[in-house]
Formats: sequence, structure tokens, C-alpha cells
Amino acid sequence: MADYPGFAFTVEHQTTADPAWPDAARVGRLATPHGEIETPAFVFCATRGAIRGVTPEQMRAEQTQIILGNTYHLMLQPGGEAVARLGGLHKMMGWDGPMLTDSGGFQIFSLGGGSASAEIKGNRKSERPKMLLNIEEEGAVFRSYIDGSTHKLSPEDSIRVQRQLGADIILVLDECSPYEVGRDYTANSMALTHRWAERSVAEFGRASEGSAGPQALYGIVQGGVYEDLRRESAEFTAAQPYFGYAIGGCLGSDSFELEGVVGMAMAPLNTATPTPRPIHLLGIGGVGDIWDGAAKGIDTFDCVNPTRLARHGGAYLRPAFADNPDERDHVHLKNARFRDDDAPLDPECDCYTCRTFSRSYLHHLIKAGEITATQYLAIHNVAFMNRLMGEVRAAIRADNYAAAKASWFAR
Amino acid sequence: MADYPGFAFTVEHQTTADPAWPDAARVGRLATPHGEIETPAFVFCATRGAIRGVTPEQMRAEQTQIILGNTYHLMLQPGGEAVARLGGLHKMMGWDGPMLTDSGGFQIFSLGGGSASAEIKGNRKSERPKMLLNIEEEGAVFRSYIDGSTHKLSPEDSIRVQRQLGADIILVLDECSPYEVGRDYTANSMALTHRWAERSVAEFGRASEGSAGPQALYGIVQGGVYEDLRRESAEFTAAQPYFGYAIGGCLGSDSFELEGVVGMAMAPLNTATPTPRPIHLLGIGGVGDIWDGAAKGIDTFDCVNPTRLARHGGAYLRPAFADNPDERDHVHLKNARFRDDDAPLDPECDCYTCRTFSRSYLHHLIKAGEITATQYLAIHNVAFMNRLMGEVRAAIRADNYAAAKASWFAR
Repeated sequence: MADYPGFAFTVEHQTTADPAWPDAARVGRLATPHGEIETPAFVFCATRGAIRGVTPEQMRAEQTQIILGNTYHLMLQPGGEAVARLGGLHKMMGWDGPMLTDSGGFQIFSLGGGSASAEIKGNRKSERPKMLLNIEEEGAVFRSYIDGSTHKLSPEDSIRVQRQLGADIILVLDECSPYEVGRDYTANSMALTHRWAERSVAEFGRASEGSAGPQALYGIVQGGVYEDLRRESAEFTAAQPYFGYAIGGCLGSDSFELEGVVGMAMAPLNTATPTPRPIHLLGIGGVGDIWDGAAKGIDTFDCVNPTRLARHGGAYLRPAFADNPDERDHVHLKNARFRDDDAPLDPECDCYTCRTFSRSYLHHLIKAGEITATQYLAIHNVAFMNRLMGEVRAAIRADNYAAAKASWFAR
Repeated sequence: MADYPGFAFTVEHQTTADPAWPDAARVGRLATPHGEIETPAFVFCATRGAIRGVTPEQMRAEQTQIILGNTYHLMLQPGGEAVARLGGLHKMMGWDGPMLTDSGGFQIFSLGGGSASAEIKGNRKSERPKMLLNIEEEGAVFRSYIDGSTHKLSPEDSIRVQRQLGADIILVLDECSPYEVGRDYTANSMALTHRWAERSVAEFGRASEGSAGPQALYGIVQGGVYEDLRRESAEFTAAQPYFGYAIGGCLGSDSFELEGVVGMAMAPLNTATPTPRPIHLLGIGGVGDIWDGAAKGIDTFDCVNPTRLARHGGAYLRPAFADNPDERDHVHLKNARFRDDDAPLDPECDCYTCRTFSRSYLHHLIKAGEITATQYLAIHNVAFMNRLMGEVRAAIRADNYAAAKASWFAR
């Protein structure tokens, strides 16, 4: 394994004592030049270099460990060079903690033809998005969603832009193949992803001199929903000099299939090296997905849900407090039943929002169109996800994962 | 003067030694049940029970002393009774400092036919707004801007709703007569305002039992731009058992006229009682207006500008830092000249925004449509106004008002 100065990953405890969970759920510590993360951890999306509605100071106050920026958005605006001139993404956006950037590929392959979440969940119905003009051996050619201009993103370009952004953890460029393309396309796409991965590793080696600071490279396992392809991709990925791995691409159309796909990739990743490497699950971070993914040994998750849900008036709540069997993991505060509800949003949460405001006030803010509604709900959703991760870690440490999960979802 | 337990106003210093400023600029302390305010002070508008984009915690961190809620908006949604059930506006919105509510009249008389600011500045061109259905001796009849339903607001209703909201300082209902109606209308309107004022005082006496907490009543001086009417209204107002006074209505069409109108009202207000009472200038709070108004002896100002400007990408700056002679008191961060400007927004400001972010990042956030742009600019604008008020107070204390004002506006 390559040397990654300033980075370390250690597993502190692994679930073994609970016969109900034979999988390798684990708690660990991921050290980066910008601080240490307790895993499993949630990575919050600062898509364009900003968490929607939440300041970096508030992110910290709600126990956030790590955030991510999207290379695709940031390379188009303000541009990698502009970010570098401002001292990197950390300095630009006022976040001095651990940070990850993706390769930019996911947005190119999914934007314009459906939502990103529909893409990875396998239920995208529309045709290949028009933003993507061509996938060549050299890289992907795409149109800017801002001004329609044509851009190319090669594996080398992605590494170079991610060097300019300066996140701690960076990702190789992969082709994120859709659900409906079938086995042949998926196999060819995986092979291209592997060739791109080798070029990324080479570029990472070349570019490491003179970069803003030490960075750690993650590879990405592809292979769709096909067990043999997933295994092949995981074995290929595990053989590269990466610091960590990400599981990407189509992960199936429901939670059950998702679990299966993740499971296919884990064994090769975990047995390839004498010491464990951190494993990230790309773009998946629903409450249930986190319990399921962490049970399989996933160390970090990312998802836009906490802030997107807030923008639409939604707040995460455990089912016990949602008072409505239809609402699995969140409530919509605009609902009339909250008009006269003077209880805190979440009785077991100690975030700024829950300490300060009632449900009825949040209901009022949403009806009045006040932007503080989005801010307050986003603060809660961030705190909620961080608390959830703490519960997951505690359950792993206590070897009572099944009981803890059941208790989390109890009504 | 009536007894106002929990309230006190003391003048600590009055400008006398500066021959360039013969007016009675003064610094003082206004004690309320929710804390003390150093005057001159700026009152920030939490129109619907929320400062746009800024949390109460952030308002405090940026040295905010007092905020206001709008009775008109809050009586329509969520309604005075709903606010009372939630424990009052302080508790509902998480602000435990001093608070003021207006009577609701200003919005009724100005909404729908032009902006509120155009109304008081005398440059409203359109006809009487359709939201206002009728002005009767009993009160104003108007249509809700939310659902079109018909409402009545009498002087007694206004006091009752303001009791439910529970602000420290409350205002009597007045008719805010437009600029263009002429002397006869203005005189009749003033007389109606005075009859309403007497009913408000009576209702305030009746309602004081059983209210949420002690409150202080302010009267309002009307009389348009006519010196004799302004004097008559000021003398009438000064004779009522108010804790303080507000100067309202049409204040002329430019800063020069505004100063004149304020000047007309001040002498009767200041000579009527052996001890001074606090004087509020309604809805006026541009940077220049504050220097001019404080010079005349105004103690508190309110204006929606700090947050409204932020919503449109504007940030207050002293002219010395604006780098553009056309920008009198603020800059627009969307301007392309800020794209590569890595300086802090305001080099002499220590607010969260200026400590953390560059101009080019704020420019990026505005272009990207991120709501944190509004939040960060609003935080700065709040801090800026509070710093401005500190400079005004220091200038009065040091008896160098003319020099301090010139220095503030120096390029």
C-alpha cells in the first residue's frame, strides 16, 4: 500500500459477539490532516462549496465530522484554479475539518436525465441525459449546466481539479453506469472504469509533488448488480495502492438489493490487505440504508438528504415521535397537525433548533416562506444524522446491533 | 407620567460642546424587562417573527440590542392568540432580549399600493392600496394579503393583539397618511390619530391586568410635512401618559425634508416633561438617516434594509471601502469585480462573515443561488448597523459628532 502521510485508519471494534449480525460492522478512527473522524460517519454534501442553510460554525456545533464538495459543480463555478487561488476549498468555505471531494463523474453521468438519487437507486426511467455528450477512452465530454459550454473530464483532469480543491480524501473518475443498461454494457463500463483508475493512480503519483497538502486517494468499485462483476471490480480495486475504497454505481432498486450489492463487494475488499482500509458508500444515506450499510462494514456514507429534506420542509424523526405510520423517517412540518403543537421538533434532540423552537413556530415559518425555516430544519437534520451515527457506533461497540436497530425504529 | 414598572430611560450625555451640532444628540440607556439598550440603537425587523436569514443566537453574537415584530403580519398568521398560547413572541421565536411591536396600522395603510419605504419617503405614486377597504372612526377595515378575508383593526384591537404578542414596547394605532393627500386630509387624519391614541391609552390601562408581562406604550406623532400640524401632534402626544414617543407618517421626500420634519416634532416632545422620554423614528434607518436623525435626538431607529439588502446580494460598506463612487453605503456582491477579490467583505468588520469568508466566495454563493449568501450578507449587515450605532454613540459621548460623521463618510 502506498504511503499516505497524515492519514491512518484503525478499526477499534468489530461486531462478532452478536449471532444476529454475522457481518463485519466496525467502529474505527480515520485520521486526516484536518482531524480525526470516528467511523461509521456521515459525510454532508456541500455541493457548490456550501452546506445549504447551515454555516460551518453551526455544522461543528452539531457534531459534524466531515463534509464533501462536488468536483463537477466546483470545476464549472468558480473553477478549480479560482478555488486554488483562494487557498483551497477548506479556506474558501470556512471549514477546517476533514473533507472529501468526488471525481465529478457521477454528476456528468446522472445530471440532466433524472435525479442523482434515482440514478443510483436504479429507478431512473428517462434516457441518457443530454448533458453527457460522449464517453471516450480519454474521458467524458459534457455540457455545462451553467452556460452550455462543452467540457472534457479525463481521469487526469479530475485528479488535477481535486488537487486544486485540496480536500483530504479524493476519488478516482469512474463511469457510473445506469441500472437498465444490462450486463454487457456494465462489464464494458467496468473495464473502462478500471483503465481510468490506473490512469488516476498514475496522475495522483505525478501530481503529489507541489500540491496544496497531503491527500488520500480512494478507488471506486463498479460492476452494477452482477455478483461476478462486483467481485472482479472489488478485487481489481483492492489491488491498487489506494488509501480507501468507495462502492459506487448502480446499487439496485431497493434496500434489499442494495444490501446484496454492497455485500458482494465487501469480502474482496476486506481480505485483500493485512490491515483494513476505509470503505465509503457513495450517495446512499437514508436512515435505514445507514443501519444496513454499517452492518455490512461500511465506514462512511454521503447523501444530500439532510439539507434537501429541510428545503422541502422535512425533518428527520425517529418513528416513535413521528405520530404517523406513513412517515418512516421524517415528518413534513407544513402539515396542519403541527399548527398548534408547542412541543420541540424532536424531544430527544439537543440541537439548536430543538432547544430553541417549537413545531408550531417551524410550521409558521414554512407557511410564511421564511428562509430560517430551511436553516432550522437543516440544522436539526444534520444533528439527527450525527446522532444516528453515534447510536450506530455505540451499538457496534456494545455488540448489540440488532437490538439497537430495532429500538431505533420502534414506535 | 404613568408608572411603567421595569422600564426606565436615562440620558447619559447630550451633545453641547460641539458648535457645529447645536441639536440635542444624546446617548442614553433604555431599560426594559428583557434587558437594557444603549441608545441611539437600531431595531431590526423580524417582520413575521423571524429575522430573514439570521438566527437569534447570531443576532446576539453580532451585538444586536433590540428587534421588532409586525403586528399586522403576526395577527394574520399565526394570529395573536396562537402566539400567546406559545408563550408570547419572545419565547416563540427564541429571542429573550428587548422587543418592540408596531400597531399594525402602517402595513394596512401602505401594503398593496407600493412599498412601505416608498410610503414614508413620500414618493409613492400609485393610488390608495386596495388592501385597505375603509378607514372608519372605529378603526381600519382591510383585506388579508394571505387569504383575502376581511379584518378590522381598531385601536383597542391593536393593543389587545400587542398584549398577546407580549413585546416590551408597544405602539398606538395611527393613520399613516400618504405624502400626496394635502394639508386638509393630513389635518383630519391627524385628528383621527389623536382620537385613536386616547382610546389606545384607555385600552392599555384596562388591559394591563393579566397581560403576559409589563409593557411600555409609545405614542405616535403625525402631521405630515406641515410644521404647525407636526407641532400640534407633538404637543398632543407629549401630553399623554406614554413611556415614549414615535415619529411616524410621511417624513418628506428626501433626507433634507426628513430632517426638517423630525426637527419640527422634537422641541415639543423634549420640553413637555421634566425628564426625557425615548423617541423612536418609525421605518427610517438608512446610514445617512441615522447620522442625521441621531443628531436631532432620535434614540431608536428601525428599518428592513439590513436583511432586505442582503436578500438582494447587497452588503453595507463605508464609502472608503466600496471602491465605487456610485455606491453610497453598500456594494452588490454579484458584481463581476468581486469574482477574484480574496479580501474580507469589510476590512474593519469583525462579524462572522468578515472573519470567515472572502468577497469572491460570497460572489460565488450568490451566483450559485445558495441561501447561505443571504445568511452571510445579513449577518454582516446586522453587525454593520450595530457598529454604526456604536460609532454614533461614541461620537456623541466625545462631543465630536461633525468630525466623526465626516470621517465615517470619508473616501
